[in-house]
Amino acid sequence: MTDAYFMKLALKEAERAFAEEEVPVGAIITIGDRIISRGYNMVEKLNDPTAHAEIIALTSAFNHLGAKYLPEATLYVTVEPCLMCTGALYWSKIGRVVWGADDEKNGHLRVTGKEWPFHPKTTIEKGILKEEAAMLLKSFFKAKR
Amino acid sequence: MTDAYFMKLALKEAERAFAEEEVPVGAIITIGDRIISRGYNMVEKLNDPTAHAEIIALTSAFNHLGAKYLPEATLYVTVEPCLMCTGALYWSKIGRVVWGADDEKNGHLRVTGKEWPFHPKTTIEKGILKEEAAMLLKSFFKAKR
Repeated sequence: MTDAYFMKLALKEAERAFAEEEVPVGAIITIGDRIISRGYNMVEKLNDPTAHAEIIALTSAFNHLGAKYLPEATLYVTVEPCLMCTGALYWSKIGRVVWGADDEKNGHLRVTGKEWPFHPKTTIEKGILKEEAAMLLKSFFKAKR
Repeated sequence: MTDAYFMKLALKEAERAFAEEEVPVGAIITIGDRIISRGYNMVEKLNDPTAHAEIIALTSAFNHLGAKYLPEATLYVTVEPCLMCTGALYWSKIGRVVWGADDEKNGHLRVTGKEWPFHPKTTIEKGILKEEAAMLLKSFFKAKR
C-alpha cells in the first residue's frame, strides 16, 4: 500500500463532499495498511464551521480505537490542514500527516509562517496527488460562481 | 452584566471539570445578556484530546442557534485558547473573545508569535479574573503530582 493508494481513498471522500455541495476535502486515517476512519467536510450538513474532514476522521478514530493519542497512525488529507485542524492533529500526537494540495489561503503555514505547530513527533509529507485535489476544489468553486 | 459576571460562570464550568478530574478550563458563550451555551474540558471523559471547553461550547452554540457563524456572540473562557480553539473561533466568526489566564505553554500567542490568527472582525479582551483561573489550574496540577 502506497501513500498514493490511501490518498486516492481520501479523494473519494472529497468527491462525496462535492456531491453533497460541501467544499470537497476528504481524509483517511490509517494504522499500517488498515483504515481506521474516514471523513469528509460536513460544514453545511452539520451547520458547524468546524466540521472539517480531518476533525470528522479524528473523532471517529478516537472512538474506534478508544484511544486519545494516535502515534501509530497516518492522516491522509486532500488539502493542507487549516490552523484548527493542525491544532487538533497536534493534540492527537498523530505519527504522520500526508496532504495533497497546499492551501494558499487557509493553510497553517500561511497563518503561522512556520511548520512548527505540528507535534514534534509528527512527520509530514505533502504534494501527494495534489493536482487531483486542487482540480476538485477548482471545479467546485467554479460551479458555485 | 459585566465581563466579570460571565467569567465567574465560566469559572463555575472550570470547577465542574476539576470535580471530574479534567484539566479545569470552562467556557460560556453569550449574546447580549443571554447565555447561549456552556462547556468544560471533557478530554478524559470523551477520550478525545480535542474536547476542549471552547469546542464543546461552540458546537452547542451552533446547534442551539442553528447558525454556523456567531458574529453577535462573546466567548468567555478561563484560559487563553490553544491553536486549535483559536482556529475554531476563527471559523465561527465570533464577535468577541474574553479570556482569563494566559497559557504560557499552549496559548496561541506562544505558538504563532502573533495575535493575528483570530478573525479580523473578532475583538479580544484578556486578564478577566485571571488569578482565579490560574489558581484553579495550579491546584489541579499540584493535586495530580
